[in-house]
Amino acid sequence: MKILVVNGNTSDEVTAVLRAEAEASASNGTEIVVVKGRFGAHVIGSRSENAIAQHAVLDAVARQGAGMDAILIAVSLDTALDAVREAAEVPVVGMTEASLLTACMLGDRLGLVSFDRRLAPVYEALVVSYGLRDRLAGIEIVEMAPAVAAVARDACETSLLRAAQVLVERDRVEVVVAVGAVAAGMGRSLKDALPVPIVDGVACGILQAELLVRLGARKPTVGSYALPLVRNPVDLGDALSGFLCRKRPADIS
Amino acid sequence: MKILVVNGNTSDEVTAVLRAEAEASASNGTEIVVVKGRFGAHVIGSRSENAIAQHAVLDAVARQGAGMDAILIAVSLDTALDAVREAAEVPVVGMTEASLLTACMLGDRLGLVSFDRRLAPVYEALVVSYGLRDRLAGIEIVEMAPAVAAVARDACETSLLRAAQVLVERDRVEVVVAVGAVAAGMGRSLKDALPVPIVDGVACGILQAELLVRLGARKPTVGSYALPLVRNPVDLGDALSGFLCRKRPADIS
Amino acid sequence: MKILVVNGNTSDEVTAVLRAEAEASASNGTEIVVVKGRFGAHVIGSRSENAIAQHAVLDAVARQGAGMDAILIAVSLDTALDAVREAAEVPVVGMTEASLLTACMLGDRLGLVSFDRRLAPVYEALVVSYGLRDRLAGIEIVEMAPAVAAVARDACETSLLRAAQVLVERDRVEVVVAVGAVAAGMGRSLKDALPVPIVDGVACGILQAELLVRLGARKPTVGSYALPLVRNPVDLGDALSGFLCRKRPADIS
Amino acid sequence: MKILVVNGNTSDEVTAVLRAEAEASASNGTEIVVVKGRFGAHVIGSRSENAIAQHAVLDAVARQGAGMDAILIAVSLDTALDAVREAAEVPVVGMTEASLLTACMLGDRLGLVSFDRRLAPVYEALVVSYGLRDRLAGIEIVEMAPAVAAVARDACETSLLRAAQVLVERDRVEVVVAVGAVAAGMGRSLKDALPVPIVDGVACGILQAELLVRLGARKPTVGSYALPLVRNPVDLGDALSGFLCRKRPADIS
Amino acid sequence: MKILVVNGNTSDEVTAVLRAEAEASASNGTEIVVVKGRFGAHVIGSRSENAIAQHAVLDAVARQGAGMDAILIAVSLDTALDAVREAAEVPVVGMTEASLLTACMLGDRLGLVSFDRRLAPVYEALVVSYGLRDRLAGIEIVEMAPAVAAVARDACETSLLRAAQVLVERDRVEVVVAVGAVAAGMGRSLKDALPVPIVDGVACGILQAELLVRLGARKPTVGSYALPLVRNPVDLGDALSGFLCRKRPADIS
Amino acid sequence: MKILVVNGNTSDEVTAVLRAEAEASASNGTEIVVVKGRFGAHVIGSRSENAIAQHAVLDAVARQGAGMDAILIAVSLDTALDAVREAAEVPVVGMTEASLLTACMLGDRLGLVSFDRRLAPVYEALVVSYGLRDRLAGIEIVEMAPAVAAVARDACETSLLRAAQVLVERDRVEVVVAVGAVAAGMGRSLKDALPVPIVDGVACGILQAELLVRLGARKPTVGSYALPLVRNPVDLGDALSGFLCRKRPADIS
Repeated sequence: MKILVVNGNTSDEVTAVLRAEAEASASNGTEIVVVKGRFGAHVIGSRSENAIAQHAVLDAVARQGAGMDAILIAVSLDTALDAVREAAEVPVVGMTEASLLTACMLGDRLGLVSFDRRLAPVYEALVVSYGLRDRLAGIEIVEMAPAVAAVARDACETSLLRAAQVLVERDRVEVVVAVGAVAAGMGRSLKDALPVPIVDGVACGILQAELLVRLGARKPTVGSYALPLVRNPVDLGDALSGFLCRKRPADIS
Repeated sequence: MKILVVNGNTSDEVTAVLRAEAEASASNGTEIVVVKGRFGAHVIGSRSENAIAQHAVLDAVARQGAGMDAILIAVSLDTALDAVREAAEVPVVGMTEASLLTACMLGDRLGLVSFDRRLAPVYEALVVSYGLRDRLAGIEIVEMAPAVAAVARDACETSLLRAAQVLVERDRVEVVVAVGAVAAGMGRSLKDALPVPIVDGVACGILQAELLVRLGARKPTVGSYALPLVRNPVDLGDALSGFLCRKRPADIS
Repeated sequence: MKILVVNGNTSDEVTAVLRAEAEASASNGTEIVVVKGRFGAHVIGSRSENAIAQHAVLDAVARQGAGMDAILIAVSLDTALDAVREAAEVPVVGMTEASLLTACMLGDRLGLVSFDRRLAPVYEALVVSYGLRDRLAGIEIVEMAPAVAAVARDACETSLLRAAQVLVERDRVEVVVAVGAVAAGMGRSLKDALPVPIVDGVACGILQAELLVRLGARKPTVGSYALPLVRNPVDLGDALSGFLCRKRPADIS
Repeated sequence: MKILVVNGNTSDEVTAVLRAEAEASASNGTEIVVVKGRFGAHVIGSRSENAIAQHAVLDAVARQGAGMDAILIAVSLDTALDAVREAAEVPVVGMTEASLLTACMLGDRLGLVSFDRRLAPVYEALVVSYGLRDRLAGIEIVEMAPAVAAVARDACETSLLRAAQVLVERDRVEVVVAVGAVAAGMGRSLKDALPVPIVDGVACGILQAELLVRLGARKPTVGSYALPLVRNPVDLGDALSGFLCRKRPADIS
Repeated sequence: MKILVVNGNTSDEVTAVLRAEAEASASNGTEIVVVKGRFGAHVIGSRSENAIAQHAVLDAVARQGAGMDAILIAVSLDTALDAVREAAEVPVVGMTEASLLTACMLGDRLGLVSFDRRLAPVYEALVVSYGLRDRLAGIEIVEMAPAVAAVARDACETSLLRAAQVLVERDRVEVVVAVGAVAAGMGRSLKDALPVPIVDGVACGILQAELLVRLGARKPTVGSYALPLVRNPVDLGDALSGFLCRKRPADIS
Repeated sequence: MKILVVNGNTSDEVTAVLRAEAEASASNGTEIVVVKGRFGAHVIGSRSENAIAQHAVLDAVARQGAGMDAILIAVSLDTALDAVREAAEVPVVGMTEASLLTACMLGDRLGLVSFDRRLAPVYEALVVSYGLRDRLAGIEIVEMAPAVAAVARDACETSLLRAAQVLVERDRVEVVVAVGAVAAGMGRSLKDALPVPIVDGVACGILQAELLVRLGARKPTVGSYALPLVRNPVDLGDALSGFLCRKRPADIS
């Protein structure tokens, strides 16, 4: 099976990290294709950059989505997850969504570690939007700019570990969810250093995407995730326009 | 004072409707400037089009926001509200946000009327994201495509009225919130036809924007709504790039 | 327009503070009329005094409400807000309600500063009753008796500022809501001292009352905020009896 | 033991109903004293009348509370429950509070029957204020004015029964809570007519009040239910003034 | 009246503690019968032991329930409460359920003290399952193994008191709920040592069980608490098999 | 990998259905081992039978769990899920838990179809206990005894389909979760008959169990899911006693 991993950033470094971790997480026989944004922020670190990335993610899917069996939105804010889930005909998973839902099967009280203080309320809003507010027992912030964190993996792991320990001690957290591309692979590398399970987004995201392909649930034809009828959008470029206005299967209301 | 009304659509008709209603709602001395999206959907009717509009709204603000005292996001989904609130230095209000908060002062049990069945869950998610889920007593959907509704005002009013009456009868709704550009002005025109108050987004949005200007609260310099530090975004065009990377007041962390 | 500001206390000092701040907050052309309670506590500081004030507030509205365009309940506990909203034909706003709803447009995570530890759970109950529990990120209490606070404005501002800073640091609060008549005007005076917006009840209350007058939504004729049919109440005095049993517009069920 | 039953109304008929049912519900050795409001509505049917009754209930307790072992607020809106709980030194229970909490031990999904459509949202707010929103599976309204209901007991029982059956069928309710003085005794009289338990306020209220006396928990000396320090209230009459300002045990902060 | 107190443990010491406290709490004329588990843990301290105790509690009720007027599940986790409530024809109360509901009438903000850190999330889940999450203001854990606590009453009281004080100071708790058989009687013994009410499970449980007997609500014949139709269970022993498959009153669907 | 599928019932027919569907759902290389309860109900249809099954499920795991890589609790009530998750060292998944979490990635509004009216509130409690109450848009009950349903697959599919359609129409459900062993395989067989995705427990459960094995998160050594220290349980039989008291890895507190 082929999974498209969408990096909503324009950064080649992050793309490389995501590719490596996605390939390390995938099952035998799963092919990973990574695409990055054509425009927007180097690394998304604000609400504004995330708003722009909503467009960029959809555009990336339009350019590279053909022939894929599933799509993983590999931005910690699960940027445009709902839009891609609507517009694509294959299963779509968000990195943070996947790690939160997977964590739910490993313990009751979830704790989040984020690498950016200013995005913390945005992550909280994300958890609420998934209906999982009551599972969230705590948030702890590693004060390290994502750009810095991306290049200093050791310091990053040490900080993440310390934050996770705070969550376990202070908030009695039973599973730690490390969010962000920065945390890619740390579920694996920090596994034995913490007394509770720790998961990250790429591993959970790839595995949940594979699972949805195996499950084979249908694309809805009604409701807010049915294919929309888009007509004559203005100035979106050929790829995105063509994707949104493509010929669709019959009888979709 | 000058208020920028941002139509996230690319439709001139909707722009005209918004302009007329915004001017009718504004106080003496308030100047209304309307801007529409440079790219994207004619009328937003899906999650995909809304994702693209996040970018388009921010782009529109970048092009026309200079010199404004406040900004009204005039899309029923309050598209990119949080991003513009972050990126601008003046107060920013969402049309649906404003009508919901205003309605809270007119009764306890709110009811929503939407003109699009497939967006209903997106409106519900919006209400939840504002923390107002417990105020929402019901949703009723007028089965009329927004594009159709935009040109058939009488039929539209009749349908809206009927839906509102269902909310009052069935769900004991005490205030009706009519969402969408289609509903612009209907708070006024249907005022006497219903036994409970009815509000719409443009009127509430303009008035709340004016209120925030009068109140004069400061722009935050910390937290998720402080001005972000955006560097070297890729391919966003001069206006948006310039806006996001503009020289900012000192000491903003 | 004329706005009646109802001080639920019997204190002349608080009345003067409220009058000054209401006048400072009002738009040109808005006339402020202030009325205080005829009986009850000097300054409401307990549930018992608040229970009595429910009656006193309604009585004050009955005595002075004629000819008003809107009413502001200027007690931090929004005493009898629902009752006056029911009994009056003009818009009615609570001071704390107004500041909470206004704050919702300035940031996601609200923090409350109260000047009385024993009323803290009552404020929390108020926030819950408005359906805004999920917006409340923290409460911080200034340990200063309201009566003391009322006369020592400088000490009061310093304490409020410190409490607000705790909310910003500890709870990542994005907007501070300062409750109580004591805080009147502090949204303005502390504006530049905090890194996030701060609002208080009188300013928000007056502005939201003006907004509702401009909006012109109708008085409901059904539901729990329709005019009630009150008959032969015992021993309420002429003003209140007359107000509650006044001749009403036709066909109100 | 002596229990004071407070009728927040000024109606002698309701007082008589409450007395009869309270005496029927009380254990051997429990003496029932009933007091009614000195001023206010004949029968509370609106938010305004309830606001006034807050004062009247406290006043009644001040007049008759001496020497009592517990107090039952016998108004369906549990009027001034929190104020009396604060001001008195003995246990205080609300009629509707008691029936809701008791119902929680008889089934999971509670259903409310109210005799007044316009008070339905007020009852819902009451349930929310007790933190029991998630237990409430449905509300059904008997369209019968309380005043009428009070004199036509048979019709009243028939209507209540029908409403309760709707709750069982439609909302899968497992315990019915009949609210209001009108429903006094109907827990007993309708017991065998419904397939699920039905409880009413007076019986539950008297029994829970007796229970709290037997339990003997202490009056708090800190927090929002400690005795407040009330000084020089204006024009409350001797009884209420004396009660609020009475000499209190030492060391109450 | 006769109340069956079910110790879900197999410990004679805990049985003796429960018996003593139940007898001390019961009214004149109430006879206490105590039964303990036939199999399972000495003292339940984990989810596994609690799962086994579900069976053991039901088995104990089958063996000793005949002729009882009410049943108190005297395990802090309210083990099998819902199952016994379904299977028995008399009122059934859980120890922790009873103390939580009783506490609701003594203050708004409840605080829990538990004697076992690893069970803390299970208690939280219990509170949530009762729909009382919004009443819970804090949890504090006494780090003392239940087995140790059972024999060192003085140390236990001292620790409980300290934990309760933390709840009052830090979380502004207004009523303390001490959970666990270990806490039996401490509502009484610590009454004067704390500035807020403190309740424990046995006293509240016995009193609420007596109350339900006095109230006399009916056994439901529909819904999830009606007597189930159990046929030919495998290998449950004569007592439990006989109890579950006993001849039942007519017309139970 | 080897997955143990635990049928909490004692029914051979249900065991066979579960085995067939588990094998049909498993990936290549996954071996399915099915175990059924040694005692208890033929088919769990009540709270009492479920209480007994808690013990039976743990007992079954003790007998057959050795050498397994993951465990699937294949009872619709996820019986003893938390206990097995605590007691086992490998990942443990509940059938209904897995289908709910998987459904969260297929749409926003979930709808439940249950084959037993009396268990409906128990399923709702389960959804609440997973913190997913806000995702649940509706429940629809197929009035068909589980025992009957088990043998009449066609009638069962027809009824399930009709119930699912009601959820889509009435509650705007976007994903249908069919609960119960009866529904095993219906996610597959009804896939094309509904306009929205439908999932069932066995398929989702097996796939999520495989996913957790691949993910390789660690067993916690602290918190409520760490291995408990069980000593000298009474009369549990050799298998369960041995399992609970087995020699464990060092330093587990």
